[in-house]
Amino acid sequence: MTTALDVVAIGNAIVDIIGNADDAFLADQGMAKGAMSLIDEARAETIYAAMGPAIELSGGSAGNTVAGLASLGSKAGYIGKVRDDQLGAVFRHDVKAAGVSFDTPAATSGPATARCLILVTPDAQRTMNTYLGACVNLTSDDIDEALIASAQVTYLEGYLFDPPEAKKAFRKAAAIAHANGRKVALTLSDSFCVHRYRDEFLDLIKGDVDILFANEHELEALFGMTDFDAGVAEARKHVEVAAVTRSAKGSVLATASEAVSIAAAPVHQVIDTTGAGDLYAAGVLHGLTSGLPLAECGRLGSLAAAEIISHYGGRPQTPLSAYVMA
Amino acid sequence: MTTALDVVAIGNAIVDIIGNADDAFLADQGMAKGAMSLIDEARAETIYAAMGPAIELSGGSAGNTVAGLASLGSKAGYIGKVRDDQLGAVFRHDVKAAGVSFDTPAATSGPATARCLILVTPDAQRTMNTYLGACVNLTSDDIDEALIASAQVTYLEGYLFDPPEAKKAFRKAAAIAHANGRKVALTLSDSFCVHRYRDEFLDLIKGDVDILFANEHELEALFGMTDFDAGVAEARKHVEVAAVTRSAKGSVLATASEAVSIAAAPVHQVIDTTGAGDLYAAGVLHGLTSGLPLAECGRLGSLAAAEIISHYGGRPQTPLSAYVMA
Repeated sequence: MTTALDVVAIGNAIVDIIGNADDAFLADQGMAKGAMSLIDEARAETIYAAMGPAIELSGGSAGNTVAGLASLGSKAGYIGKVRDDQLGAVFRHDVKAAGVSFDTPAATSGPATARCLILVTPDAQRTMNTYLGACVNLTSDDIDEALIASAQVTYLEGYLFDPPEAKKAFRKAAAIAHANGRKVALTLSDSFCVHRYRDEFLDLIKGDVDILFANEHELEALFGMTDFDAGVAEARKHVEVAAVTRSAKGSVLATASEAVSIAAAPVHQVIDTTGAGDLYAAGVLHGLTSGLPLAECGRLGSLAAAEIISHYGGRPQTPLSAYVMA
Repeated sequence: MTTALDVVAIGNAIVDIIGNADDAFLADQGMAKGAMSLIDEARAETIYAAMGPAIELSGGSAGNTVAGLASLGSKAGYIGKVRDDQLGAVFRHDVKAAGVSFDTPAATSGPATARCLILVTPDAQRTMNTYLGACVNLTSDDIDEALIASAQVTYLEGYLFDPPEAKKAFRKAAAIAHANGRKVALTLSDSFCVHRYRDEFLDLIKGDVDILFANEHELEALFGMTDFDAGVAEARKHVEVAAVTRSAKGSVLATASEAVSIAAAPVHQVIDTTGAGDLYAAGVLHGLTSGLPLAECGRLGSLAAAEIISHYGGRPQTPLSAYVMA
């Protein structure tokens, strides 16, 4: 029997390899600062050999979000594909140890577990280079209909459009969710990702997405509007809830009838912005699935994002449940 | 041609898996708080399944020390055995990226790369559970005679006595070093380790060790003396330099003719004591091989230890060269 979930997320299951670098390193390597770039295995080896000592942490955008949701007290599940290798075992351990259900079988052949080489510059900005590895083997067959049907919200990361088979899994999950009267949430993930799939994302948002997460750059890439408020207004026409972040300037949460501005939560020292958007989404989704007012959803999003940028990596290191009002 | 090294270290090549735990977890698992316990692969799986989300960082006592030495500006080399698996690649990357030469070939069969499951309690104490894995395949054949002969100091970790073949490698390296007029340094590693090999360690110290690193508990385990000063006095009879640490109480550095007390360096917040002794040794060895006065060797040891306990893991996250006076 499937336990009812608050949120089930589908994403690229990735282990992050995080090291420090300066801007000159990014320039030498031809990296687009702040972006997520897809790389092949040979390029991953080249970058890894060039970068300094690193630490390894489980990551993946939606993986970070469900870990945050569980830490906030939500019942969360995850669907994603690792290989049966050491990094795959690390990913599985960490998401399950966070309290998230995760039963997608590991691939027993094919590419290794995905890894993301993350360079953190002195300004705490993260620049990501992702080798998708085993993520290309996530297919529609991995979508557990009962699991999707059980969850209030099915959360999908835009990055999932990169592996071609995963896109079909994405669409299947959205269809199951709606057939069962559930909500579909999408994060646009990255402005380069939006440029890669703009027309498909627009179609999705007009028909299949109930809750949209984006930052200001992704929203601009999607709608082609340089004016922030115009972009938010456009989003509100198509989705029930639009959550748009603006880094240190906070965020806007908007429905058809209501819009609230949320301040960013104060941070003693920003160490690494990896996972900021993922954890903001966790806070907002926890609030929405708990039936909390928009302002409270945003407050939780800001606090969860503040925790994650105070240390390396995109998984919470302190229990986020402390932020939830009794 | 082998480049002349300041220090070559031989150790168990280990990737650390670090998570937070409370004292109740240690008690439930029957762990000796603060100690390093050897575990088999099945027990490693059991502990890993029970512990919370974790992060992975290269570790190994001597591996941490050479990474610290390189960060301080010393020319350092490492000898140790990983397998040709993902965690082995992580270990190799990190030690080489730190600027340490490391050419020991990976094992192509047999157990996986060693891992140490480290539980950090709220008091920042670390409790270690080591599955030695591929370390059991380090043999005398892995000791590069030219490399040892080139180094001012050959540094050996007491933990190396645990894999039986490594003990022979240890003795071979010490013999080569002395045949070439070089110094041999030993760290006692852990008081339980001292109890396991007390008689052999005593023999070594009386004949083959020039520089001895120990903490107060290890020294007591070795000589059976509960009085700290008596233990230091005993050590001074047998080695040229005795470096004995006492956690927050600092350390004593002593030769036959001189003894200096070194204060611990102030730390804003102690996060994780993993690697404190390893980095203290790095600072002292950097000073000794640079011909610095004992007090300055100790100052560098204290500062390097203070950096490492300010964050998770036993590898420096900031350049230790900043502590070296021009």
